[in-house]
Amino acid sequence: MIKVGVVGAAGKMGSEVCKAVVADSGTELAAAVDPFSPGALVHGVVVESDLKALSGAGVEVAVDFTHPNAVFENALHCLEAGIHVVIGTTGLGEDEIGTIEKAAADSDANAFIAPNFAIGAVLMMQFAKEAARHFERAEIIELHHDQKADAPSGTAIRTAELMEAERGEWPERPDSVESINAVRGGLVGGVRIHSVRLPGLVAHQEVVLGTDGQTLTIRHDSTDRSSFMPGVILAIKEVAQRPGLTVGLESLLGF
Amino acid sequence: MIKVGVVGAAGKMGSEVCKAVVADSGTELAAAVDPFSPGALVHGVVVESDLKALSGAGVEVAVDFTHPNAVFENALHCLEAGIHVVIGTTGLGEDEIGTIEKAAADSDANAFIAPNFAIGAVLMMQFAKEAARHFERAEIIELHHDQKADAPSGTAIRTAELMEAERGEWPERPDSVESINAVRGGLVGGVRIHSVRLPGLVAHQEVVLGTDGQTLTIRHDSTDRSSFMPGVILAIKEVAQRPGLTVGLESLLGF
Amino acid sequence: MIKVGVVGAAGKMGSEVCKAVVADSGTELAAAVDPFSPGALVHGVVVESDLKALSGAGVEVAVDFTHPNAVFENALHCLEAGIHVVIGTTGLGEDEIGTIEKAAADSDANAFIAPNFAIGAVLMMQFAKEAARHFERAEIIELHHDQKADAPSGTAIRTAELMEAERGEWPERPDSVESINAVRGGLVGGVRIHSVRLPGLVAHQEVVLGTDGQTLTIRHDSTDRSSFMPGVILAIKEVAQRPGLTVGLESLLGF
Amino acid sequence: MIKVGVVGAAGKMGSEVCKAVVADSGTELAAAVDPFSPGALVHGVVVESDLKALSGAGVEVAVDFTHPNAVFENALHCLEAGIHVVIGTTGLGEDEIGTIEKAAADSDANAFIAPNFAIGAVLMMQFAKEAARHFERAEIIELHHDQKADAPSGTAIRTAELMEAERGEWPERPDSVESINAVRGGLVGGVRIHSVRLPGLVAHQEVVLGTDGQTLTIRHDSTDRSSFMPGVILAIKEVAQRPGLTVGLESLLGF
Repeated sequence: MIKVGVVGAAGKMGSEVCKAVVADSGTELAAAVDPFSPGALVHGVVVESDLKALSGAGVEVAVDFTHPNAVFENALHCLEAGIHVVIGTTGLGEDEIGTIEKAAADSDANAFIAPNFAIGAVLMMQFAKEAARHFERAEIIELHHDQKADAPSGTAIRTAELMEAERGEWPERPDSVESINAVRGGLVGGVRIHSVRLPGLVAHQEVVLGTDGQTLTIRHDSTDRSSFMPGVILAIKEVAQRPGLTVGLESLLGF
Repeated sequence: MIKVGVVGAAGKMGSEVCKAVVADSGTELAAAVDPFSPGALVHGVVVESDLKALSGAGVEVAVDFTHPNAVFENALHCLEAGIHVVIGTTGLGEDEIGTIEKAAADSDANAFIAPNFAIGAVLMMQFAKEAARHFERAEIIELHHDQKADAPSGTAIRTAELMEAERGEWPERPDSVESINAVRGGLVGGVRIHSVRLPGLVAHQEVVLGTDGQTLTIRHDSTDRSSFMPGVILAIKEVAQRPGLTVGLESLLGF
Repeated sequence: MIKVGVVGAAGKMGSEVCKAVVADSGTELAAAVDPFSPGALVHGVVVESDLKALSGAGVEVAVDFTHPNAVFENALHCLEAGIHVVIGTTGLGEDEIGTIEKAAADSDANAFIAPNFAIGAVLMMQFAKEAARHFERAEIIELHHDQKADAPSGTAIRTAELMEAERGEWPERPDSVESINAVRGGLVGGVRIHSVRLPGLVAHQEVVLGTDGQTLTIRHDSTDRSSFMPGVILAIKEVAQRPGLTVGLESLLGF
Repeated sequence: MIKVGVVGAAGKMGSEVCKAVVADSGTELAAAVDPFSPGALVHGVVVESDLKALSGAGVEVAVDFTHPNAVFENALHCLEAGIHVVIGTTGLGEDEIGTIEKAAADSDANAFIAPNFAIGAVLMMQFAKEAARHFERAEIIELHHDQKADAPSGTAIRTAELMEAERGEWPERPDSVESINAVRGGLVGGVRIHSVRLPGLVAHQEVVLGTDGQTLTIRHDSTDRSSFMPGVILAIKEVAQRPGLTVGLESLLGF
C-alpha cells in the first residue's frame, strides 16, 4: 500500500484524486492538504492547511492539483522532504520545470509531470503519431462544449506536432479552393485542425488519416473527470521507479 | 411501365441512369441519346445522336445528365415535344430556369430539376432544418476526397441556409478565442462549416446540433454513384403528376 | 411568467427541474414539494412536505418526478385542484393512465406524460421513422454505460417499432451467415438492434439506414441530466393549451 | 527500381496491383502472367500464360493474387526460380504454408504472406491490442455491405483474439440483462462483436474501448480496392530483406 498525500484535496480534481486513491487496492490516502479548507473531512481524512502534514503522515507520494502559482513551491518542498511528487497542475514555466528537474536529481525522491492524465488521450496521440508515417494526409477535429476558452485545444496542437515530428514533411496533395473563408481549418505542422464548439459536448478529439481507398480514425471521448484517475494512479505507482524528473504519461505506458 | 429516354446516355451518370431504369420494374429504357457515342450499345439499346429519337421511341419521360451548355436546349426540345423532363445537369442560370418554367407551364409535359438526387442527402437537409428550431447551435462537418475542387460543398451551404431560414437568428452563445487562425471554420447563416479533405474519403456530411446535455448528429455517406439512382427513378415516376416546373427532390418526398 | 410547482423537488431529476424553471425567463419556481426533505432550501424556495402547498402558492403547472407509487395520487390531486400536471415519472399502468385521462377530461386542468424528455431523442425517433420509407434496411446501435440494467434500451425498441409502423414490412435482402452466434444482433420489427455496454459511455443511440451507394445515420448523445430540461420546460409552457391528456413529447413538436 | 511480376494480372486485384506497381517510383512492371487472358495488354505489358515469363523478364519479386488452388504451386515455382514472392491469395492450408516456409528457407528467395494488405486495418488491430491493457472492456462493431457472405468478418475475430492474447482475461464487469435475444452480440475472446449489414456500406470496423469516464475508438474505413495497394508495395520493397517466410503486414510495420 503506497501512502499518498493529496495537495489541493478540496478542489474538484483533488477530491476526485482522494476518492480514486481510497478506491484503489494498492494506494492509501494518508494525508489531505488544502489551505482553503482546513478541518474539512475528505474520504475520512481531515484536511490540513500545511504541507508539513505530509511528512507527519509518512506520505511516500504527493499528488498536486493546486494552482499555477502554488505548484512550484509545493513540488520543491516535497522533493526536499524526500517525498515523490506527481504534478497535474499546468502552467509551470520552462525555468521552473528546470529547477524541479535539478531538485529531483539531487533528491532520493522523484518528480512526474503530465499535461493530460487521460490514458485514452495519450494513446490517441501515440497512435496518431505511429500512423502518420503510413498515411498521406491527416486532419484533426476536436469538439468541446462552448464554455471552453480557447481553440484549438492543447491536445490537438500537441497531436499535430507529434505527427509532424515523427513523419517529417507531409507530401504535396491537391486541395480545395475555399469559396468561404476558413472552412478548411487552421494549420499546425502540416495538419488541418477543426475546432467544433457546441453546448452538449464534453471533450472529444478525432484524428482522421487518409490514403487511397481508406481512412483510419482515432477518437477519444472524455465524459467525466474520473477519466483522469487511472493515469494519476498509474503515476503514483510508477514515480518511485523513475529517478529524476519524468514528463508525460506516455513515458509510463511504454511508448 | 414508364417509357424512359436517357440523354447523355454514354456518360458516367447517364449510363448509371440507363442501368437503373432497366433494373426498375416500373420503368423501361426506350431510347438512349448521346451525340458523342452514336451506335454504341447501352443496356441493349442502341445510342442515337439526335433528340428526335425520343419521340420516335414513344418516350414519356426524358432524363438529362449532359452538360451545362446542352441541357437548356434539350429541356426545351422535350417540353415542346410533349415529353416530361427530369434534369440532373447543374449549371443552369436563373433566366434559363425561368424560361423552362414557362415552357413547362405552356406544355402538357412537366419539368423537374434537382441539384442533388441522393435521397439521403435530401433527408439530411430536411431533418437538419426541422431540428434547428430545437437546438441552440449547430455546426457542419463535410468530408470529401482531396480531388474535390471547392470547399465547402454546395450541400453544406444549402444546409446552413435552410437551417437559418427555418430558425431565424441563432441565439448568442459563448465562443472560444482562436489561438490559431481559422480553426473555428467558416460561417454561413450562423452555422460554422468545417471542410475536411483527405484521400480515401468519398462524400460525407455531418450536421451536429447541440443544446445543454445533448447533441443530435445527422450524417450522410455517399459511397457510390448508384446512390443518386433511387432519387432519379422517383423523379421519373412523379414528374407526370406535377404540372409545370418542380425544383428539388424534397418536394417529391412530402416535405 | 408561468408559476410552477415541482413535486419530488429534492430528488436528482426534481432539483434539476427546479434549476431549469428558475433559469427560464418564462417560468417561475412558485413551490417545491418533497415529503423526504421538508424545510430544505431549493433554489431559494423552502421545500414543503404536502401537495397543498401547490394551491397555496398559486401554482399553475405542477411537474412530477417522484416515484411510481406516488405519481398517480399526485396527478389526480393536481387535476382536482385545477393545476395542470407534467409527468416525467415512469411506471404508470394503463389503467392508471386511463384514470388520469378521465380526470383531465373532467377538469379545466390538463395532463401531459412522456417517457423521454430529451428533445434530441424524440427527433431521432421521428427522423428514423420518416427516413424508413426511403431506405431498404436499417439497423440500430445503442450504446450505454455498463451499469444499465436492461438491453436493448426502451428507446431502441420504440424506434424500431415506429419505423416498422411507418414502413410496413421491409423488403427481402441478402444476409450474412453467422459463424459466431448472435453477432447479427436482436430483431425488433424487422430492424436489427445491437446493444453496446461499456464503462465511459453515457447514453447514445445511432440509427443507420442503408440503400444502394449511401447510408444515413441519425445519432443522439445524452451527456447530462440537463438534456431533459428543454423538453420539460416545453411541456410546462404547452400543457395549458392541450385539453385532456397528451402523451409523448413528439406531440408538442408538431409531429 | 525493383522488377515486379504480377501473377493473376487480369483479375480484379491483380490488375490493381499492376497499376500500383507502374505508378510507384521504386517499382517497375516487368511481367504479367494470367492463364485466363494471354495476349491481353495490362498497363503496357503483354500478359503471358506461363510462369516462366517471370524469369525471362528478370523479375525479382512476384506478387500472387490468383486462386486458392493455384497459389501454392505458383509460390513454390517462384522460390525455386530464386524469385521473392508476395502472396495475397487467401485459403492456403497450414501444411501448405509449412512447405512454403521450408522452400523459402532452402532458397535465396523469400516469401511473404498476409491475409489483409490494408495498412489501416493492420494499424487498427495493433492499436486495439496495445490499448486493451489500459481499458476495462472493449466491443467491436464491424459494418459491411449486405452481400458479404459471413458474419463476423475475419478481421473482427482476429482483432478480438489479439486483444485477449495481449491482455489475458478481461475483468468482471456488470452487464445488462437481454430482454431481446442476441442484442448484446457474439463473444470472441471476452470481446462482444456486433456485425452490421446494410446496402450502401463498404467495409468498416470500429473498436470501442471503455474505462471510467472515457472511451477510445479506433475505426478503419475501406472505400476502394486501392486501399490494399500501399501494403502490397511495401511488401514488394521489403521481402528481399526478410529471409525465409514472413507472415502478416504488421511485421513490416515495426510492430
